[in-house]
Amino acid sequence: MTRIPRSHPRYRSLMIRERLVEGFKRGLVVPEGLIAHGRGEAFDYLLGEVSHPFALEAERATVAWLLTARRPVISVNGNYAALAAREIRGLAEATGAMVEVNLFYRTEERVKRIWRYLDEVGVPNLLPWDCEKTHIPGLESPRGITCRDGIASADFVLLAIEDGDRTEALVRAGKVVSAIDLNPFSRTAQTASITIVDEAIRATVNMERMARSMTREEALEARRSYDNLEVLKASFAAIFERLSHASKAGRPPAPSGGHEPLGSL
Amino acid sequence: MTRIPRSHPRYRSLMIRERLVEGFKRGLVVPEGLIAHGRGEAFDYLLGEVSHPFALEAERATVAWLLTARRPVISVNGNYAALAAREIRGLAEATGAMVEVNLFYRTEERVKRIWRYLDEVGVPNLLPWDCEKTHIPGLESPRGITCRDGIASADFVLLAIEDGDRTEALVRAGKVVSAIDLNPFSRTAQTASITIVDEAIRATVNMERMARSMTREEALEARRSYDNLEVLKASFAAIFERLSHASKAGRPPAPSGGHEPLGSL
Repeated sequence: MTRIPRSHPRYRSLMIRERLVEGFKRGLVVPEGLIAHGRGEAFDYLLGEVSHPFALEAERATVAWLLTARRPVISVNGNYAALAAREIRGLAEATGAMVEVNLFYRTEERVKRIWRYLDEVGVPNLLPWDCEKTHIPGLESPRGITCRDGIASADFVLLAIEDGDRTEALVRAGKVVSAIDLNPFSRTAQTASITIVDEAIRATVNMERMARSMTREEALEARRSYDNLEVLKASFAAIFERLSHASKAGRPPAPSGGHEPLGSL
Repeated sequence: MTRIPRSHPRYRSLMIRERLVEGFKRGLVVPEGLIAHGRGEAFDYLLGEVSHPFALEAERATVAWLLTARRPVISVNGNYAALAAREIRGLAEATGAMVEVNLFYRTEERVKRIWRYLDEVGVPNLLPWDCEKTHIPGLESPRGITCRDGIASADFVLLAIEDGDRTEALVRAGKVVSAIDLNPFSRTAQTASITIVDEAIRATVNMERMARSMTREEALEARRSYDNLEVLKASFAAIFERLSHASKAGRPPAPSGGHEPLGSL
């Protein structure tokens, strides 16, 4: 792994990028995934690289569903695995949710590689890579392939950095879908039931911590009171306000209001 | 090439991404180019993925220069070649401009590969890859290497997705420089004489079409009346207005005002 000095002002962002590049070299991530990450980095700049209150709210609602849904599943693709395998382990442990490797650019070889990587890291509740398969209605093969006992029969799915078509198909299939996506304009962000406009590692760390202390009553209340349209509006407003500030000051505002988890980097 | 079904709502953006990944696999594009593309995608989201009136104005001025300059040159790097080789062919045919392969991350091997790719696609007026070389003043080797009969002696240069340092050096050398760059904040965008805030394929298709019908009189008038500061302001304003709308509605406004070319995807 490339050595980034801890003193580098962009240490955290560069380490995140390094995780992805490592994942690319290991065959977990496709070149398209590098492009998607670059897009995310740009939006994270616009957001100030912190977990805003609207993100924490969506994360809280997601944890509430993970704790109280009948069959909650965390869907993991190459980027999410490369970025946040250890954090996914923590979230799966804290919630008991099942974990399924599910890819847009699907090859069985890559599914196996990602599955093995998650298994090595110690992610629990992993659906077997050779699970019995079925199709999500409305998605042509191989994009629609999923485990019969996983996403196909889930009532709640958490996904990250996901294709908009797939997100939409899951919502159409009647599932509650929470999506981690730094771009609030994306079809995934616009289609999801719960939109987490936050970086994947930050979001997952936050959710693990929330899951360890949330009561069932709090979870049911968080589900009831959640309003995704307000969260989307607030995410656009945050970008707007930062740009507005920058258009007057010539620089972005100092981080505030947001919450930066300690994380593991 | 990965199969993206035509029915996918983001077919166009995904196919653009596929062109770049193909170019990466062929050794035309470097990994840095993939991340740069992702950044461009983020700004294209902010812009609504259409060619706005300010982009069309800059494209019109660029065509005017390509048609009337003494020695106009189209500078092509790895990303531009991978994205828009066929469209560059059309623009070079329509304007008679010379085409030079010129790279920031320069290796002679990659120059040759890109040159051969453009040649295969049928791009006319290609300066030989083994042209007599000279240096752009103020740019350390190998970033400053250029063809003596190409960019070095050009009075007008069109470039795309280019490094800010190089753009600046060309402007300092007294050339009129037009730059295609989706990020109006970038140093390239801020430094160029003409800034085309548009996606490279869309911009090149638009310019070819304009070049086929523009008269010399119209070209001279377009040169005279062009105001890049107004174009830059309008590009920031477009992003600002879209964000302002989205912060109230929770979603971006429907595309309008912009012009989406049919293109070739």
